[in-house]
Amino acid sequence: MYAPLQNDSFLRACLRQPTDHTPVWLMRQAGRYLPEYRATRVKAGSFMGLATNTDYATEVTLQPLDRYALDAAILFSDILTVPDAMGLGLSFALGEGPKFERAVRDEAAVDQLAVPDMDKLRYVFDAVTSIRKALNGRVPLIGFSGSPWTLACYMVEGAGSDDYRLVKTMLYSRPDLMHRILAINADAVALYLNTQIEAGAQAVMVFDSWGGVLADGAFQEFSLAYTKRVLQQLKKEHDGQRIPHIVFTKGGGLWLEEMAALQPDVLGLDWTVNLKSARARVGDRVALQGNLDPNVLFAGPEQIRAEVAKTLESFGAPGAPRDGQVDSHIFNLGHGISQYTPPENVTVLVDAVHEVSRRLRQPR
Amino acid sequence: MYAPLQNDSFLRACLRQPTDHTPVWLMRQAGRYLPEYRATRVKAGSFMGLATNTDYATEVTLQPLDRYALDAAILFSDILTVPDAMGLGLSFALGEGPKFERAVRDEAAVDQLAVPDMDKLRYVFDAVTSIRKALNGRVPLIGFSGSPWTLACYMVEGAGSDDYRLVKTMLYSRPDLMHRILAINADAVALYLNTQIEAGAQAVMVFDSWGGVLADGAFQEFSLAYTKRVLQQLKKEHDGQRIPHIVFTKGGGLWLEEMAALQPDVLGLDWTVNLKSARARVGDRVALQGNLDPNVLFAGPEQIRAEVAKTLESFGAPGAPRDGQVDSHIFNLGHGISQYTPPENVTVLVDAVHEVSRRLRQPR
Repeated sequence: MYAPLQNDSFLRACLRQPTDHTPVWLMRQAGRYLPEYRATRVKAGSFMGLATNTDYATEVTLQPLDRYALDAAILFSDILTVPDAMGLGLSFALGEGPKFERAVRDEAAVDQLAVPDMDKLRYVFDAVTSIRKALNGRVPLIGFSGSPWTLACYMVEGAGSDDYRLVKTMLYSRPDLMHRILAINADAVALYLNTQIEAGAQAVMVFDSWGGVLADGAFQEFSLAYTKRVLQQLKKEHDGQRIPHIVFTKGGGLWLEEMAALQPDVLGLDWTVNLKSARARVGDRVALQGNLDPNVLFAGPEQIRAEVAKTLESFGAPGAPRDGQVDSHIFNLGHGISQYTPPENVTVLVDAVHEVSRRLRQPR
Repeated sequence: MYAPLQNDSFLRACLRQPTDHTPVWLMRQAGRYLPEYRATRVKAGSFMGLATNTDYATEVTLQPLDRYALDAAILFSDILTVPDAMGLGLSFALGEGPKFERAVRDEAAVDQLAVPDMDKLRYVFDAVTSIRKALNGRVPLIGFSGSPWTLACYMVEGAGSDDYRLVKTMLYSRPDLMHRILAINADAVALYLNTQIEAGAQAVMVFDSWGGVLADGAFQEFSLAYTKRVLQQLKKEHDGQRIPHIVFTKGGGLWLEEMAALQPDVLGLDWTVNLKSARARVGDRVALQGNLDPNVLFAGPEQIRAEVAKTLESFGAPGAPRDGQVDSHIFNLGHGISQYTPPENVTVLVDAVHEVSRRLRQPR
């Protein structure tokens, strides 16, 4: 059905198999920093107009691949499509973050929640299939969703927040309600990601963007337990291919061992984490993905190359295979790329990752 | 000159000496959640009007002590007084964060920076002396400042930020300029805190509120190194009394060992850190301060008591003294108290800390 994969370095690295370079992709690589993205966005009229139109979603997903030697594509969509399908009414005002029309603030609102009919998310699965075909085997396609906790943050707050007061008030005063929301979210996210896999996604990533705002203890109970519930339901194979699972908790550096115990294939890391130390802590169980500060891309080419080299050298060479497996690193930013990034600086970054990581693998 | 101290539990805990309960104070304990604070604020006309008036600053500093059995007072002021004294023009619009009239964005602006004349901060030192007298020995008084890096964030951004793009652009593209700013800030902060000590502060705290936004590597070079430069210059004694030094890096949980190596007396912790594990990592070298999520104060009394108990039990009992020293814990929030906190819930928290921590010290 699909053309064979020409560059499998990303999937191999996810599964801790040797590669001749460190694969690289960037969170939000299809986005506002690219003039061609902004042009398509204007045609589409709105962010959701872009995300719900198969042709536009395909077009913008492929844009960064035409500019840069990236080793993976990621579905163009939003982390909040699932609660939108639950009927909460997602919208994006220009220049602002996501907003829900109907926030979930009380027991009556929680009573209304259910795992949504996947037909309401058909536009996502259609986009996945269309992108997979358009990729024509160039690189693998990553599907994704927000984590149960991260979805709950937006569902209760109704929008982004800087103190998470409403969602944490519910968590501490009505933990029973919070657990009900999270259980529904987890089952919905698992079904959503499995349907993306059936539609053609070759790896899936759970973005726990707000896990790091939780207190130790609350993180394990309200975020990690439900990420686990997602992972336990996820397909590990499709069409005879292993489907790697990636978990990224921004601000989760203190909890790497607990996240690795859920047995995802890959852990995403933000820039506060030292890669050498993360490798020592969990590198024998999971591949590590990350973790350059996106703000490095505002510096000049020399500094970008130096910071890329520091990141790669901090992880170090993959080492000799044991039972066919190596410690592996997938290069990424520690968070989404900024809309203000000069596009030409991304070329410097991607090329430096390939060049330096090949050199790191040379015998000394 | 001053009345003898009636409650020295906070200072003893800072110095890892045994106490019969865990002392407690709260970051931003004198603040907007208190109706009496809001009344004084109206009289003063503005935040800076409040902070620069000795009588008002004294009044609001003592307000929470009249309501709650707190074990320490903290000077009412702002972390950004030092750059204001450098001439950058600090202001607070109602309901918004701090803002500088003149941001430091280029080499010409950096050339203008210097350690300010401490006379420009006389209002702070006068407030310290006035508060110390008004306390009349009830509890010790903590002085404070923003860290060199945190000051630099505001100085370059001109205000708060959610991506720190401008300050990080300077950091990555002109590290030489960033180092010049930080060196000046460090020397200014050290002089400022030493002058607070001379004016009557019995402990001093460095708030590295934005250290946690830095990448590993950048944190050590641009935040930690300058906190060290401050600590190296700080008075360790005044008037025959030891003056404890407290360092708090929000989001710094991964770097506790490196912070402990600077040999402050106390490390502040945010709520993402597990106290038991922090104690195991550095508890034999420093006292630990923290770390309840301020949002717990939006729950009911039962839940607040339960979360307080969990926090205290996570640290555990102080243990038997070795050479007169114990592992010690100072209870606090992991960040400033929210302006929306119901004041009566703070009573529940403070009383629970005293009650549960006394019980924890009973032989079983």
